[in-house]
Amino acid sequence: MKAAVLDQPLSIGIQEVDMPQVKEDEALIKVHCIGVCGSDVHYYEHGRIGRYVVEKPIILGHELAGDVAAVGAKVKHLAIGDRVAVEPGIPCDRCEYCKSGRYNLCPDVVFMATPPVDGAWAEYVAVRADFLYKLPDTLSYEEGALLEPLSVGFHAMRRGKIGPGDRVLISGLGPIGLLAAVSAKMFGAGRVIGSDVIPFRRELALQMGIDAVIDPLHGNAADAMQDLTDGKGVTAIIETSGNAKAIGDAIRHVKFGGKIVYVGLPTTDQIPVDIPMLVDKELDVFGIFRYANTYPAAIEALAKGNYGIENVITHRYSLDEIKEACEVARTQKDKSIKVMIYPNGGEEK
Amino acid sequence: MKAAVLDQPLSIGIQEVDMPQVKEDEALIKVHCIGVCGSDVHYYEHGRIGRYVVEKPIILGHELAGDVAAVGAKVKHLAIGDRVAVEPGIPCDRCEYCKSGRYNLCPDVVFMATPPVDGAWAEYVAVRADFLYKLPDTLSYEEGALLEPLSVGFHAMRRGKIGPGDRVLISGLGPIGLLAAVSAKMFGAGRVIGSDVIPFRRELALQMGIDAVIDPLHGNAADAMQDLTDGKGVTAIIETSGNAKAIGDAIRHVKFGGKIVYVGLPTTDQIPVDIPMLVDKELDVFGIFRYANTYPAAIEALAKGNYGIENVITHRYSLDEIKEACEVARTQKDKSIKVMIYPNGGEEK
Amino acid sequence: MKAAVLDQPLSIGIQEVDMPQVKEDEALIKVHCIGVCGSDVHYYEHGRIGRYVVEKPIILGHELAGDVAAVGAKVKHLAIGDRVAVEPGIPCDRCEYCKSGRYNLCPDVVFMATPPVDGAWAEYVAVRADFLYKLPDTLSYEEGALLEPLSVGFHAMRRGKIGPGDRVLISGLGPIGLLAAVSAKMFGAGRVIGSDVIPFRRELALQMGIDAVIDPLHGNAADAMQDLTDGKGVTAIIETSGNAKAIGDAIRHVKFGGKIVYVGLPTTDQIPVDIPMLVDKELDVFGIFRYANTYPAAIEALAKGNYGIENVITHRYSLDEIKEACEVARTQKDKSIKVMIYPNGGEEK
Amino acid sequence: MKAAVLDQPLSIGIQEVDMPQVKEDEALIKVHCIGVCGSDVHYYEHGRIGRYVVEKPIILGHELAGDVAAVGAKVKHLAIGDRVAVEPGIPCDRCEYCKSGRYNLCPDVVFMATPPVDGAWAEYVAVRADFLYKLPDTLSYEEGALLEPLSVGFHAMRRGKIGPGDRVLISGLGPIGLLAAVSAKMFGAGRVIGSDVIPFRRELALQMGIDAVIDPLHGNAADAMQDLTDGKGVTAIIETSGNAKAIGDAIRHVKFGGKIVYVGLPTTDQIPVDIPMLVDKELDVFGIFRYANTYPAAIEALAKGNYGIENVITHRYSLDEIKEACEVARTQKDKSIKVMIYPNGGEEK
Repeated sequence: MKAAVLDQPLSIGIQEVDMPQVKEDEALIKVHCIGVCGSDVHYYEHGRIGRYVVEKPIILGHELAGDVAAVGAKVKHLAIGDRVAVEPGIPCDRCEYCKSGRYNLCPDVVFMATPPVDGAWAEYVAVRADFLYKLPDTLSYEEGALLEPLSVGFHAMRRGKIGPGDRVLISGLGPIGLLAAVSAKMFGAGRVIGSDVIPFRRELALQMGIDAVIDPLHGNAADAMQDLTDGKGVTAIIETSGNAKAIGDAIRHVKFGGKIVYVGLPTTDQIPVDIPMLVDKELDVFGIFRYANTYPAAIEALAKGNYGIENVITHRYSLDEIKEACEVARTQKDKSIKVMIYPNGGEEK
Repeated sequence: MKAAVLDQPLSIGIQEVDMPQVKEDEALIKVHCIGVCGSDVHYYEHGRIGRYVVEKPIILGHELAGDVAAVGAKVKHLAIGDRVAVEPGIPCDRCEYCKSGRYNLCPDVVFMATPPVDGAWAEYVAVRADFLYKLPDTLSYEEGALLEPLSVGFHAMRRGKIGPGDRVLISGLGPIGLLAAVSAKMFGAGRVIGSDVIPFRRELALQMGIDAVIDPLHGNAADAMQDLTDGKGVTAIIETSGNAKAIGDAIRHVKFGGKIVYVGLPTTDQIPVDIPMLVDKELDVFGIFRYANTYPAAIEALAKGNYGIENVITHRYSLDEIKEACEVARTQKDKSIKVMIYPNGGEEK
Repeated sequence: MKAAVLDQPLSIGIQEVDMPQVKEDEALIKVHCIGVCGSDVHYYEHGRIGRYVVEKPIILGHELAGDVAAVGAKVKHLAIGDRVAVEPGIPCDRCEYCKSGRYNLCPDVVFMATPPVDGAWAEYVAVRADFLYKLPDTLSYEEGALLEPLSVGFHAMRRGKIGPGDRVLISGLGPIGLLAAVSAKMFGAGRVIGSDVIPFRRELALQMGIDAVIDPLHGNAADAMQDLTDGKGVTAIIETSGNAKAIGDAIRHVKFGGKIVYVGLPTTDQIPVDIPMLVDKELDVFGIFRYANTYPAAIEALAKGNYGIENVITHRYSLDEIKEACEVARTQKDKSIKVMIYPNGGEEK
Repeated sequence: MKAAVLDQPLSIGIQEVDMPQVKEDEALIKVHCIGVCGSDVHYYEHGRIGRYVVEKPIILGHELAGDVAAVGAKVKHLAIGDRVAVEPGIPCDRCEYCKSGRYNLCPDVVFMATPPVDGAWAEYVAVRADFLYKLPDTLSYEEGALLEPLSVGFHAMRRGKIGPGDRVLISGLGPIGLLAAVSAKMFGAGRVIGSDVIPFRRELALQMGIDAVIDPLHGNAADAMQDLTDGKGVTAIIETSGNAKAIGDAIRHVKFGGKIVYVGLPTTDQIPVDIPMLVDKELDVFGIFRYANTYPAAIEALAKGNYGIENVITHRYSLDEIKEACEVARTQKDKSIKVMIYPNGGEEK
C-alpha cells in the first residue's frame, strides 16, 4: 500500500510499504480522511517534540476516519464496510491510570505518529477494535476524523466541569480552540467568547456560532469580557493558544472562584504566572493531556446538534500531495485551520 | 390591592387586602403572571400537604414574574420598572445548609404559599431583593414565571450530574417533566426520551423537541428504550410522575452504574423498591427538594436557546377567574399542563 | 495439589486437582490464608446465588493472601517469595466500564468462586499479576486476605464521599460492617456508630475502636443517634445488614441532605422504601457492587494505622477441616465473624 | 477595656477602648487566647498587605477562643459561660458566593484585623453568633484558637480532595504547614511528608507525627520523595512556604495526574511556572483563600484524635507584652512558630 513517509525534517514522500497485519483483536481500516495536526507539522519541520525524536523514517497522522476492511477473529462489534472513527492511542489497560479511568496518562500508551510509532497517513491502518467507533449515518467521515481534535476540547470541558452557569472564554481560535468552543456549547455553557489575534480565525469562529469574539491586541480585553457577560465576568477560560501572555492573562481575566484549563503548549518552559492572584482568587487550574473516554459521548453530541465542525477544514489534499499539505499547514497559519488528507481519493462525505 | 384568598378547601375568591410593606432589603413586585402549581392545587383541594396545613385564610401561588414597583433603601441592583423573575423561598442565610450552598434544605426557609406563608396570587408582592433576577429583553414574563418549575428540572440535572454522554429518560411529562426534558437538553444530554401515559403530554413533549416518547402502558418500555438508544440503554432516569410503578421501573430500566433522580412525590409513603438490583447495578439515586442557585444559570441557558418553554402554558386566566383556573388545574389533567394567572390584566409578553 | 471441592450443596471435601498453569502475565500464588465469605457459605448451602448456579463441582474462596511461587515471562513487578494480597476479579479491560475506572461493573469480569469460575480454597492459584499487590512487612497475611472484604467498605466510603465532617452509622456489624467501620475511620469520619442486634458483634466493634454502638431492638435508635452526635444527627448510613427494616430505617435516621450507601443484600427483592422522605430530605443513595482501585490505597491506609482488623477472625482451620469451617460459618452467626482457612498449614503471620 | 492598638508600623501599645456593643444576633466574647498570625506581623511591620492599608489605628488579631460573656436577644444556641472558638470573617450572606457555599470569596466579607476592620487583641470582642462554635470539654482554648490556621489546612485538603490513596508533601512547615500536615492525617492521607529548610521546624513536624521530613537544600528532594513513597511518588503537594523555588518544584515533584494546592503567598507576583509540564502531567492546581464551612468538621476531627496541635505554640504572652510578642514573631522565624496572647491573664487550659 501507499504511505507518506517522513525521512528527515521537511523530507516527506509517498512510498510503498507493507499492508498492516491485523491481529485477532484488531480491524483493518481503509483510511477515508485524516487530518494534519500541529504535532505532525512540528515533527515534519523539526523532527522532534521534546523528548520524542524521529530517529528513523516514520508515517505521521492520527486524526482519521474510514471503513472497516477486515476484522480479526475476536472482533464482534464491527463488520466489513462499517464506517468508523479511530481513537489513535492504545493504552496498556493494566496500570493504575488505565484502571482508574485516566488511560490518557498511561506511561505505556502506544500513540499513532508519536515516534517511534507509525501513524496513518496511508491507505490502510490496523487498530485495536475497541478503539474504533461506528459513525452514525448522519455524521460524515470528516466529522469522524475531527473527533480527535474535538476530543481535546471535550476533555477540557469535563476537566473544567463546564455546564450551564459557565461563561467561557476560549483563548486561541486555531483548530483546538474552535472545537473547544463547540465543546463548550455541547456542555451547555451560558456564553462562549473567543479570543484570537488573527481576523480570519475570529470570523470563522463567528460563522461557527460562537457568541462573541475579542481581538486581544486591540482595546481592553478585560473590559470587553465584562461587557460581553453583562458585568458578571467569565467563570472559565480554556487556554489553547500556548501564548505566554494569554497564559498569564487567564489568571487576570477569570472571575474569583473561576476555572482555567491549560491546553496549549508554550514554546518555552518557564512562564511567569501571578501565583498570589491564583491563590487570592481561589482558582482551579487544570492541565489537559489528550483525552479519555470521549469518543462515544462526543459522537452522540455531534450527531444531535448542528455544529458544522467541518467548517474548520480549510484545505483538502490527496495523499500524493502530502508535501504541499504539510507546507500549507506549516507556513499559512493565518489562512489555514485544518488541512485534511484523503489517502484513498474520496474527498466528499 | 386585590388578592385571591383560600378560606377553606375549594373555597377561593378575590378579596381586598393590604398592600405589602416593603422592607429596606426588599422590592415590591407588580405581578405580571403567576402559575398554578400542583402544590397550589393540592392545598386548594385538600387544605394540606403532609405536615403543612392551611389553618387560616391563605394566598397561594409562587411561580411568578413581574415589574419592580418600589425598592427598599438598601436595594442597589434593581430599579423601578425592571422586569424580574422571583425566586419564592427565602432561607435563613445562617444555618449549616445555607452556609454550605444547599439553602433549599434550610429548616427555617420562608416559602411562598406554604402555610402559613402567603404566596402571590395578588396584584403585588414584596420580596427580598437578592431573590429577584432581572429578565433579559429576550425573555418573556411567562418564561420568567416558568423559571420556578424549570429550576426543579435544572436542579435535578445538577444533582444527577447530567451532561454529554448521558441518555436520559424523563418519566412523567407533566409541567415538571416537560421542563426537566428542556433542562436535560440545556445540560447537553446525548438523548432525551420521555414517558407518559397521556397522549396529549407525549405530543406536547415532541412539539417541544424531545428526542422520542414512550407510552409505558403499551409494548415493552425496556425494549423501547434499548431501541431508542441504539442498544446502549439510558444512563439516567428523572422520575417526575410519582407513580409507584414508575418509581420501581426506574431501577429496572436504567443501565448498570446509572443514575436515578426522584422528583415526583407518590401519594403513599412506602413504595416497593428492588434494593438488590439497586445494589447490584451500583446505582446512584438522588432525591430532589426544590432547588438552589438555579435562577442565574437557568436565565442564561434560557436566553441563548430556543426552547419554547411557554408551550407548557395551556390555559390563561385573569385573577378574577381564579376559581375557574383552579378547577381546570384540578380536574383536567389530561388537557392542561400549566395554568397561568395574570393578576394585573396583561396576558401578552 | 489439594483443593476443597464443592460437589453439591453441603457436600464439600478435599480432592487432588491439577496445579494451575501460569500464563505469561500471571503469577502462581501459594495460598497462605483465605477467608470464608458469606457468598461462599451461600453457595455451600444453597448451590446458587440468584442467577449464578453451581452446575458442576467448584472450588470456592476469594479472600486470600500468599506467596509468589512462580511468575510468568512478562511479569516484572513481582519475584518468587514476594508476599502478596490477591484481588480476585479480573475484568476484560476493554469495555466502557473498564475504560472509565469502574471495572467492578465489567459484564465480562472473571471473579473467583462465582460459578463457573473456580476460587482458591486450594494450595495454589494462578492470578493475573496486575491484580497482585505486595504486602509491606508490617502487614500480616491475614490482613492481606482481609483486604478483600475491607475493600467493600473502602469502596463504600469513596462512593459515599465520607470524610471529616461526616458522622456515620454502620448498620450491621458482621465482617463487612466491622471493616466498613474501620474504613470510615480511615477516611476521617468524625464519629462512627455501629448498630447490630447481636451483642457479640457490638462488643467486638467496641473492641475494634468504634465510637459507640446501638442495639436497634432496644430503645429508640433515632434518639440514640441524636444523643451520640450531640443532637446533630448522622450524615451518612452504610447499610450492610440487608435487613428490610434497617434498609427502611436508613431513610428515616439519616440527616436532611445526607447519604446512604446500600451494601447488604436483602433476601427478598421488593423492600418498602419511603420515597417521599428520600425526596423531601434530598438524600443521596448509592448502591455498591464489589470495589475497584481499592487495594493500593487500602494497603497504605492499613499499614500506617493500628486498626487491628485481624480481630474479625474468630475461627481458623486447615484446608482439611473445610467442612467444619463451612459449618461454623453457616450455623454460628452469633459467634463467628470471619472464618479463615490455611491451605498450606501456617496459621501464624 | 484594654486593647492592643497599632498606630503606625512597629508602634503598638495597650489603650483603653470602648467595650463592643453587642447586637441582637451577636455574642460578647471574653478572649481567652489569640494568636499572632503572619498577616498580623506583616501589618505590624509594614502597615499594609497589598491593597489593604492601615490608614488609622487598628486592633489586630483574628485567631481566638474565649468565653461567652453576653448574648444578644436573638441568640439561641449559646449561653453565658460557653467556651467557644471564633470564626473571624463575617460574609454578606446574600451574594452568589455566599449562596453557593463559598462564602470565603464574598467580596463584602468583614474580616477581623483586615484594615479598616478591628481584630481581637483585646479583652473582649463581639461576634455574630452563628460564627461562634462551642468547644467540647476535651478541647482546650488554645486548640480553639488554632482552629483558625488549622482551617486553612483543612480547606486545602477539601479543595485538593485528599483522602486515603494520597501521598502528600507539605511544602513549608511554618504554622500553616504544620497544621496542614495534621489536616492531611485527618483526611486519611496514606503518607504525609514535610519539607522545610529550618531544622527546628522539621524536628517539630516529626514530634507532631508527620511520617517523614525533607531538607530541600540538601540532597535530591525528588529522589527523597520517591524513596519515601516506595517509588510511587507523591499524589499531592500542599505548598505553604510561598517560596518561588518551592512553587516551581511542586510542578516537577508531583506525580502525573497529581494535585497541587497553593496556599503560601510569594512576595513577588510573577513566579516562573513550567506550564508545559503542568499540561503534560495533566495536573490539578488549586488556589486557597482562607476557608469556609470548616469549623464544625475540624472541631469533630480534633476532638476525636490526639493530634497535639498545641505543640505549634512556641511563645506565650500577656496582652501587656504585645510589643514583645510581635517582635518575637517578626524576628525569630527560626525559633518561633505560633505566638499566643492571653488578654485576660489565663495561660493554661
